[in-house]
Amino acid sequence: MATQGQVITCKAAVAWEPNKPLVIEDVQVAPPQAGEVRVKILFSALCHTDIYTWSGQDPEGLFPCILGHEAAGIVESVGEGVIEVQPGDHVIPCYLAECRECKFCKSGKTNLCGKIREATGAGVMFGDRKSRFSVNGKPIYHFMGTSTFSQYSVVHDVSIAKVDPKAPLEKICLLGCGVPTGLGAVWNAAKVEPGSVVAIFGLGTVGLAASEGAKAAGASRIIGIDIDSKKYERAKTFGVTEFVNPKDYEKPIQQVIIELTDGGVDYSFECIGNVSVMRAALECCHKGWGTSVIVGVAPAGKEISTRPFQLVTGRVWKGTAFGGFKTRTQVPWLVEKYMKKEIKVDEYVTHSLPFGEINNSFDLMHEGNCLRCVLDMHA
Amino acid sequence: MATQGQVITCKAAVAWEPNKPLVIEDVQVAPPQAGEVRVKILFSALCHTDIYTWSGQDPEGLFPCILGHEAAGIVESVGEGVIEVQPGDHVIPCYLAECRECKFCKSGKTNLCGKIREATGAGVMFGDRKSRFSVNGKPIYHFMGTSTFSQYSVVHDVSIAKVDPKAPLEKICLLGCGVPTGLGAVWNAAKVEPGSVVAIFGLGTVGLAASEGAKAAGASRIIGIDIDSKKYERAKTFGVTEFVNPKDYEKPIQQVIIELTDGGVDYSFECIGNVSVMRAALECCHKGWGTSVIVGVAPAGKEISTRPFQLVTGRVWKGTAFGGFKTRTQVPWLVEKYMKKEIKVDEYVTHSLPFGEINNSFDLMHEGNCLRCVLDMHA
Ligand SMILES: NC(=O)c1ccc[n+]([C@@H]2O[C@H](COP(=O)([O-])OP(=O)(O)OC[C@H]3O[C@@H](n4cnc5c(N)ncnc54)[C@H](O)[C@@H]3O)[C@@H](O)[C@H]2O)c1
Ligand SMILES: NC(=O)c1ccc[n+]([C@@H]2O[C@H](COP(=O)([O-])OP(=O)(O)OC[C@H]3O[C@@H](n4cnc5c(N)ncnc54)[C@H](O)[C@@H]3O)[C@@H](O)[C@H]2O)c1
Ligand SMILES: [Zn+2]
Ligand SMILES: [Zn+2]
Ligand SMILES: [Zn+2]
Ligand SMILES: [Zn+2]
Repeated sequence: MATQGQVITCKAAVAWEPNKPLVIEDVQVAPPQAGEVRVKILFSALCHTDIYTWSGQDPEGLFPCILGHEAAGIVESVGEGVIEVQPGDHVIPCYLAECRECKFCKSGKTNLCGKIREATGAGVMFGDRKSRFSVNGKPIYHFMGTSTFSQYSVVHDVSIAKVDPKAPLEKICLLGCGVPTGLGAVWNAAKVEPGSVVAIFGLGTVGLAASEGAKAAGASRIIGIDIDSKKYERAKTFGVTEFVNPKDYEKPIQQVIIELTDGGVDYSFECIGNVSVMRAALECCHKGWGTSVIVGVAPAGKEISTRPFQLVTGRVWKGTAFGGFKTRTQVPWLVEKYMKKEIKVDEYVTHSLPFGEINNSFDLMHEGNCLRCVLDMHA
Repeated sequence: MATQGQVITCKAAVAWEPNKPLVIEDVQVAPPQAGEVRVKILFSALCHTDIYTWSGQDPEGLFPCILGHEAAGIVESVGEGVIEVQPGDHVIPCYLAECRECKFCKSGKTNLCGKIREATGAGVMFGDRKSRFSVNGKPIYHFMGTSTFSQYSVVHDVSIAKVDPKAPLEKICLLGCGVPTGLGAVWNAAKVEPGSVVAIFGLGTVGLAASEGAKAAGASRIIGIDIDSKKYERAKTFGVTEFVNPKDYEKPIQQVIIELTDGGVDYSFECIGNVSVMRAALECCHKGWGTSVIVGVAPAGKEISTRPFQLVTGRVWKGTAFGGFKTRTQVPWLVEKYMKKEIKVDEYVTHSLPFGEINNSFDLMHEGNCLRCVLDMHA
């Protein structure tokens, strides 16, 4: 490659300050160092975590930064020692690493790799604790180890999933966050069994993916709960069998669900990020065994609470990040499942825009009918 | 038996009002009706739930009542249709039923039988929603379906465990509550594996039994946490390998434990009933997999809370009642384990008193060195 070892100047959307429109800048992207991979990002979707950090609510948000973490692209060049991918490989950069060496990876109990987390949390690369992005010599922070709102990004080799080159990148970019999160919440965190009664709070991308996962797991009833009744029609095609709008009831929604299900659901999923709904999701679980999984990300400082009796009488409260999937190992497997038509992906792409209109895609995310808006990074 | 079918008049300790000394009365105990068993209670120990209800803090407490739920005795007579026990059988009356027919029993997921709960919660028998106890014609409420602070008690056949007649009743009465609760929290709720690092908050009977259970499960470190440092010496003999007194530290106890264990424990158990400790017990768990089990019973109205991020990053919050053991099936098995010296029981009996001194045993429970005080009901 002509660009290998060179600084690449390309377009990136820089968040200079919280809550201000992103600015498309000419950004200098340094070559990948040892253990790093430079990826030409082809398609990038927007997820709520981008908006959360952009809005300034995330106390750990660093500015200026390049956001974006749901994307797909092609490897442009690799740094020293990188053996699992090479230029030309189709990849999904992941916000969780999988180093296969740390205490977490070796535990067999979690997908939360500990290797590079401190660096990615600080907006820099693991090797030298520096950024690979700059604008006129001024460094720009990385975000979640991905920074996919750039035409080129540098990521760690431990967090890059190599995928089937036949898979359409403009679709499978979604397998970088929201869709696996919902599917994995059901398959890995809850381990829903056939015949289970399931409640899903929030019918956005994550909730719909949870519903799809529950249907695939053989759930007998999938109750969708959303304050926007328009969500039901579409949700049916993702497996939701019944719909409840909390606004239609005076009584607490947990009470409504308990009555609907003769004592409560076997599994519930909070896919919104609202701590009162998290409580409702736990409390609508069946005594003795009901398990509630927190998937939504609540605003900083918010706390969940309940009476301990809820747990003493057998309910279980847990959560999940990226649905418990190991990124390097399982994202390629999810791509295969998509190629075999075993999971939906296309159906979550409701909007597409050229990269230059990225600020519009932020607005779209607040519209009820938008699930994911995919940006064509080189249009 | 001469008494069969007759009303028995015997001594019972009646709680006429909350927080007032119990009064030993001549109580009339009606014969067992269909599905009921009348038991001559030989030994009864005191547990914190008795004190909690007695004190008036339990909003569901009913007065006048006969407390007591950790006991052993001999069947005096049985009502119609009772086939699994007969007069002369040695038994432990249990506060949880196991009907083997209800949704709960058949689920295979919980020990919380639903069959008679509504009646026992209302202080009466399931068959006719009436009490079998009276004093001069005035009915006295049952308590937890056991009411073992009486020389004779009537219990449901679905909640009576028939045990090895060779087992000493003055010891195995403890297998009616505290000891199984701690053991089962570790074996059934947490399923602690060999090599695990465990934290146990509160080193009373329940916490010591959890420690014993963790040792038997092969835990590599068992960290006991108690605000009374005198608890450590005895706790060592139950398996505790390290001791932490929160009062010795300025920083939050979860922080102390995380530092002691390079990131947190694999399993923690709250055996106190304090909602702030419940939070600490969750938060001292290792990211990615740490599981915290609530065993202690908090005062009415108290709530637990934490940041949802604690769960999203892989911690699990659960609880247990009676350690998840199925009473009729597993209490006899625990008695067998005791007879084979595989679990301790004698070591928890720190005090013994004649029944007439029951009010003193309430005071004893507040003394640091008392674990269980066993009353000889016919001394
Ligand atoms: N744990 C993870 O790894 C992970 C990964 C990705 C996203 N997330 C989080 O998952 C959540 C959902 O993401 P999404 O993209 O599906 O969001 P979304 O905004 O598209 O969907 C949320 C849905 O919840 C509904 N809703 C809002 N308030 C409600 C209430 N009180 N009761 C019922 N319904 C309500 C909305 O109408 C909407 O349909 C977000 O918090 C996001 O940050 C978590
Ligand atoms: N879930 C169930 O099925 C079940 C069954 C039986 C008992 N329980 C409950 O278990 C709990 C323990 O019972 P027990 O008989 O062992 O009680 P206990 O009073 O003998 O033991 C409690 C211990 O906790 C210690 N402690 C108190 N406050 C503390 C704090 N802030 N930090 C650290 N240590 C503290 C005390 O010094 C004591 O050693 C009680 O709440 C009881 O009601 C629950
Ligand atoms: Zn995301
Ligand atoms: Zn790792
Ligand atoms: Zn008890
Ligand atoms: Zn039952």
